[in-house]
Amino acid sequence: MVMEKDARTFVLLFQCQDTKGIVAKIAQCIFGRNANIISLDQYSSDPYGGDFFMRVEFFAEDEAVTGATLEADFSRIAAELKAEFRLYEKTKLLRMGILVSKLDHCLLDILYLWRSGELKVQIPFIASNCETNRRIAAEYNIPFHYVMASREDRKEQEVLSLARANSDFLVLARYMLVFSPEFLKSYGKDIINIHHGFLPSFKGAHPYRQALEKGVKVIGATAHFVSDTLDDGPIITQAVREVSHKETLADLVHKGKNLEKKALSEALQAYIDHRVIKHKDKTIVF
Amino acid sequence: MVMEKDARTFVLLFQCQDTKGIVAKIAQCIFGRNANIISLDQYSSDPYGGDFFMRVEFFAEDEAVTGATLEADFSRIAAELKAEFRLYEKTKLLRMGILVSKLDHCLLDILYLWRSGELKVQIPFIASNCETNRRIAAEYNIPFHYVMASREDRKEQEVLSLARANSDFLVLARYMLVFSPEFLKSYGKDIINIHHGFLPSFKGAHPYRQALEKGVKVIGATAHFVSDTLDDGPIITQAVREVSHKETLADLVHKGKNLEKKALSEALQAYIDHRVIKHKDKTIVF
Amino acid sequence: MVMEKDARTFVLLFQCQDTKGIVAKIAQCIFGRNANIISLDQYSSDPYGGDFFMRVEFFAEDEAVTGATLEADFSRIAAELKAEFRLYEKTKLLRMGILVSKLDHCLLDILYLWRSGELKVQIPFIASNCETNRRIAAEYNIPFHYVMASREDRKEQEVLSLARANSDFLVLARYMLVFSPEFLKSYGKDIINIHHGFLPSFKGAHPYRQALEKGVKVIGATAHFVSDTLDDGPIITQAVREVSHKETLADLVHKGKNLEKKALSEALQAYIDHRVIKHKDKTIVF
Amino acid sequence: MVMEKDARTFVLLFQCQDTKGIVAKIAQCIFGRNANIISLDQYSSDPYGGDFFMRVEFFAEDEAVTGATLEADFSRIAAELKAEFRLYEKTKLLRMGILVSKLDHCLLDILYLWRSGELKVQIPFIASNCETNRRIAAEYNIPFHYVMASREDRKEQEVLSLARANSDFLVLARYMLVFSPEFLKSYGKDIINIHHGFLPSFKGAHPYRQALEKGVKVIGATAHFVSDTLDDGPIITQAVREVSHKETLADLVHKGKNLEKKALSEALQAYIDHRVIKHKDKTIVF
Repeated sequence: MVMEKDARTFVLLFQCQDTKGIVAKIAQCIFGRNANIISLDQYSSDPYGGDFFMRVEFFAEDEAVTGATLEADFSRIAAELKAEFRLYEKTKLLRMGILVSKLDHCLLDILYLWRSGELKVQIPFIASNCETNRRIAAEYNIPFHYVMASREDRKEQEVLSLARANSDFLVLARYMLVFSPEFLKSYGKDIINIHHGFLPSFKGAHPYRQALEKGVKVIGATAHFVSDTLDDGPIITQAVREVSHKETLADLVHKGKNLEKKALSEALQAYIDHRVIKHKDKTIVF
Repeated sequence: MVMEKDARTFVLLFQCQDTKGIVAKIAQCIFGRNANIISLDQYSSDPYGGDFFMRVEFFAEDEAVTGATLEADFSRIAAELKAEFRLYEKTKLLRMGILVSKLDHCLLDILYLWRSGELKVQIPFIASNCETNRRIAAEYNIPFHYVMASREDRKEQEVLSLARANSDFLVLARYMLVFSPEFLKSYGKDIINIHHGFLPSFKGAHPYRQALEKGVKVIGATAHFVSDTLDDGPIITQAVREVSHKETLADLVHKGKNLEKKALSEALQAYIDHRVIKHKDKTIVF
Repeated sequence: MVMEKDARTFVLLFQCQDTKGIVAKIAQCIFGRNANIISLDQYSSDPYGGDFFMRVEFFAEDEAVTGATLEADFSRIAAELKAEFRLYEKTKLLRMGILVSKLDHCLLDILYLWRSGELKVQIPFIASNCETNRRIAAEYNIPFHYVMASREDRKEQEVLSLARANSDFLVLARYMLVFSPEFLKSYGKDIINIHHGFLPSFKGAHPYRQALEKGVKVIGATAHFVSDTLDDGPIITQAVREVSHKETLADLVHKGKNLEKKALSEALQAYIDHRVIKHKDKTIVF
Repeated sequence: MVMEKDARTFVLLFQCQDTKGIVAKIAQCIFGRNANIISLDQYSSDPYGGDFFMRVEFFAEDEAVTGATLEADFSRIAAELKAEFRLYEKTKLLRMGILVSKLDHCLLDILYLWRSGELKVQIPFIASNCETNRRIAAEYNIPFHYVMASREDRKEQEVLSLARANSDFLVLARYMLVFSPEFLKSYGKDIINIHHGFLPSFKGAHPYRQALEKGVKVIGATAHFVSDTLDDGPIITQAVREVSHKETLADLVHKGKNLEKKALSEALQAYIDHRVIKHKDKTIVF
């Protein structure tokens, strides 16, 4: 029964220059379609103007009201306000392609959440440059693609074909290769990466070693959108914990794994719930 | 200039049985008064029905639109929807009466935040059963009332007269006496207490000693509304931190002070910003 | 090479009434055996007397110095001081029997840490009253015992036989049945449980529901030794995180899983490293 | 009575190349003086060699055993082992000179802890380039020195004379001027600074603005020893908290103040208890 309701539940992400009456227009439109707002979050970059961002979740009782009806409604409002918007049907799951290298702790965490129904998403494929992950993919009945990628030949064309055809976004669950700007441009959709350091500190390789050498007393992990610049895209979530002088590199790596799982799974959860808006170099996470 | 805008900024807290069109009605009303929504937070206790709670902050540009105009508008809508609401003008500061016994760390923290403009509130009086706090009140130019209250005679009538005449709410910044149900009923407004324990554990006296004896590995402090039952009212904020077997009672008390300051100042900040709604035994903190 | 060294590394846990010269005696004894102290942690319940607790890790270079030699040495010192001690060889792994009911998140987390070498322990068996865990046990090549236990018949004799013959301690990785005092007495070794609530709050069944109903702003999980009283044994670790009024029961359960994994895996790590001393109703965790 | 005992309590910090028998030698020496070890913490940078660090707190009952006796004892051992050591008498309080610019939240926090006896230290002076802090110093009966320092003329000679004559270490409680290498060399003792950013991120000016612009989801503050390189000395403590896209610069500054107070007061507490050893670019904090 909840399922039936979910089937008629929509999420609207809406952004434009702030002006009077935006909430009224949209709420009125939703009410006009005999739908009920379940939750509404709104944020303006400046209280007296600036950029306007909104997430509305609503339940459209009438069967006559379809995604197409609503898409048309919001297009009209968006045109008026020179706004951008995205409309999602709650039961239409996003397709999340997974790329992973050797370390499998984030992969396993994602798959567990997915199987237990906590991460509501489709997983069309797991692609990896490590054969060892084939077994895991098989266990979860997910198509596995071995990509013989390396620093010398990143096999971007192969990954690109796979990703464009089968995914709405990609997650790099500890994927150790960097994509070229051309790849990012051709793919054109969101890519979420987990970096095992507290950005903007400790970019690049061996962040735990960097943290150890610096002698920090708190370590962190960062989930962020991939951009043209290495480890520099908009940050979605960060997880941190205290460490002491006693911790060895192995201890940091071990404790860091939990931080990586936490930061990545929370970022994916937010993204899949359509609670993340990328705006310039930053994110709004409702 | 910001001050002028603040002077025309309002906060509406609105709650009723959930139904279609509530957001539309209110947003339309605000728009109809040529006002701009700055932020809107909405929560329903059940996505498909239940109780509806909303906080809207908006800026009414037109001088003709006064608190009275808006009060009338929202009264009409509330009547229709059988709703309760409260409307606040942002520059009209609440009057917060402070009660404190001997320990002054929370008191000093509040006063510091108040003087630095971070806690936007009026402080009409500090009342205490400890003369030692007179000096602090003097330093901050706040009227001090010595109340010779003790467990034997809590001098409730004296406190009540003071509080009713001069405050919109009370904060018990480590006030060690318990009020009678009669006091609470007569005062009739909100009272916020800081309890130096992680409720619902460790109610009553000596919570740190209780925590030490139990051997917990995390201690906490809780800011909550006072109710008829000791240390049992709706929780607003809780602050926690790890402790080890090495900590003595003095260590817990010392570390706990920071937790108490944190939990209480964050609760007061939220309350003063009109982000707290008390509902049955719980709170909604936007 | 590290392995060889590990093979000659010992951990001593030592406790007695505090008096002068204990550290000197033990350190002198270790030095007399041509061994090097790697780390030493010492705690007294009262700085000027009270109970004395110590953990020393040391590396005995000479092959002639065996566990038996050292056992004899420390027995002599312990007799003098009326002390209790335990001596562990670092490479002699403890045998940890796992009991689990339906929920498998803690089980999977433990097994992952075990396979990756982060949890240095033997796992002689997984026993469960849920057939669904057989597949997981098989995947990790661990003997699985289905125990047809229920609230009506807890099959304690069956579990006891298994546990006594094959384990140095037990972990209840979300095992939903309570053991009788007779069971605890007969088993006679340590049992570590994960409780999905912030003890001493929310004992017994449905702690997340209790937390939701109370409206707390921080939830927690607690790993503790099992004692005769339900959810009341000495606490080893606690993990906490903030929650808001928006969280549903499902949200609490979901977020709580991570807390449970964290509290339990850290407790097991500490126990396996011989960093935990149970003393009366509390623990010392070095 | 505790005071009398404290008067005969010592803390030894000891460091050298690791070798067998160090703990035995020192513990034996303490026992030989009829003293009782209260607590002992030991750390080696490498379990099988490396650098050895130890902190021992002990109570010397006999009046004949003075600081001089012990100093001679440990000098002998240190010579043997080519070690460095420092011996502190617990009741001989360190003299902590305070430098502060305009922002007074850290200053007030330190003074409160000092007056309440939680920070056991002498405060010989408060020096500031802001006259506004004179009142605070007066209130606490601490000599105030106005130093007309500015970016153009940092008046280092004046500060140096004051500091050399009157302090064992300095704390920069939000002091906005940077010292020259010459100053650091001439002073020759420890200087502890609080940086309002999560180092090594956000060095230099306006760290909160930098954090806001980067869009981080966690902010932090760092207490560290001052070195020749700006904001780069050995880190003692770090405090962190989550932030969201909603926070303005003012919010970050406000929340950051609590982090600064926490990181700085914990660093000072550790330093004053002789729990901090500076080693190369890092710290050991027992």
